[in-house]
Amino acid sequence: MREVFQQELAEVQRRLAEISALVTVSIEKATRAFNESDVALAEEAITADEQIDKLSIELDELAITILARQQPVARDLRIVVSALRISASLERMGDLSTHIAQLARYRFPDKVIPKNLRGTFAEMGALDVVIATMLTEMLSTQDVKLADIIRNEDDKVDALHLSVFDAVLGATWKGEASDTVDATLASRYHERFADHAVSIAKKVQYLYTGEWKQEEVEAHTH
Amino acid sequence: MREVFQQELAEVQRRLAEISALVTVSIEKATRAFNESDVALAEEAITADEQIDKLSIELDELAITILARQQPVARDLRIVVSALRISASLERMGDLSTHIAQLARYRFPDKVIPKNLRGTFAEMGALDVVIATMLTEMLSTQDVKLADIIRNEDDKVDALHLSVFDAVLGATWKGEASDTVDATLASRYHERFADHAVSIAKKVQYLYTGEWKQEEVEAHTH
Repeated sequence: MREVFQQELAEVQRRLAEISALVTVSIEKATRAFNESDVALAEEAITADEQIDKLSIELDELAITILARQQPVARDLRIVVSALRISASLERMGDLSTHIAQLARYRFPDKVIPKNLRGTFAEMGALDVVIATMLTEMLSTQDVKLADIIRNEDDKVDALHLSVFDAVLGATWKGEASDTVDATLASRYHERFADHAVSIAKKVQYLYTGEWKQEEVEAHTH
Repeated sequence: MREVFQQELAEVQRRLAEISALVTVSIEKATRAFNESDVALAEEAITADEQIDKLSIELDELAITILARQQPVARDLRIVVSALRISASLERMGDLSTHIAQLARYRFPDKVIPKNLRGTFAEMGALDVVIATMLTEMLSTQDVKLADIIRNEDDKVDALHLSVFDAVLGATWKGEASDTVDATLASRYHERFADHAVSIAKKVQYLYTGEWKQEEVEAHTH
């Protein structure tokens, strides 16, 4: 029984990493589509979200089946419950990636972001890709040290997010209202994407270091 | 054992309704603070979020304890797992309510929204309050018919959300960039708040009508 359970947990872990890898491809395409106004790439990112949703649902069903059949307790139980939460966050990251791609598609053939913010969004996009890549690695290897790197990259995303507001609200902003709307939404999507990654990284970190309570508190007060 | 389990489930249900009631008070205060630029009320909404977070964490712990001790299967198991998900959505609704209150506080003593959009936001706010009220009722009574009402009110919120973009992107928009940013974010927060309520209502509805799979699919493709 115990051995079967370990195999099932390994399968859950494998699938979480698989979904995270798809999210990584999605944010890579979405941010590139966004920065280069590439509508074909935007379509790819949008279409790929169905697969992320599907795998996320299947993972939830597997986790519930494990709860029913294996009746785990203590830390094992928390691992399975965490898998359900991580799956929900990954699914949400896929949605946010899709939203970024949709902004690119919506404004095409125009560029979605005015010139003076393109550098900022290129940086934010690159950081989101790095964060998703680190997260996939962390879910594959349970290397909890990666959590600090993800948190650090998220701080940079937060700073860029604030700088977008500074730019848009600054005296030299010459954008149309549509530019202001796009910049506001896009910045929020990039920032939320990184937030979810941090929340997942914390779950994995505290799960493998045993500090569950703190993870709970931090996740909720985020 | 079975009787204890039923009592524990009833306790979970009571607590979900309790958190939802706090979220309802929070969105009522936040939207009023937002529409009337009432900074004291905004503070109240922001402070109250701690209690929502605390109760949400405690509920999660109770649900995990029930899973460990009662080892529920089949529908009982799905009810407990759903409670974890509903708790996460309620916690998120509290966050969004806080974000709305923060916008009001941030712009004080200025009004956060320009005159021509005040009617729209008054309507959106009122709808979010109705939706939260219905949700609390649904979580207290398991009256699944309320799900349709919540969905219907959410459609109205979505329409108002789109109308905000129409206004902001329209030829007659005279707002500053800061007005555009505020309107964009506020509208998004109001809309997401209602979305989470719909997602919870669907979970309760399908849980009590047995159509779990469909709920899963809809929640994920939302």
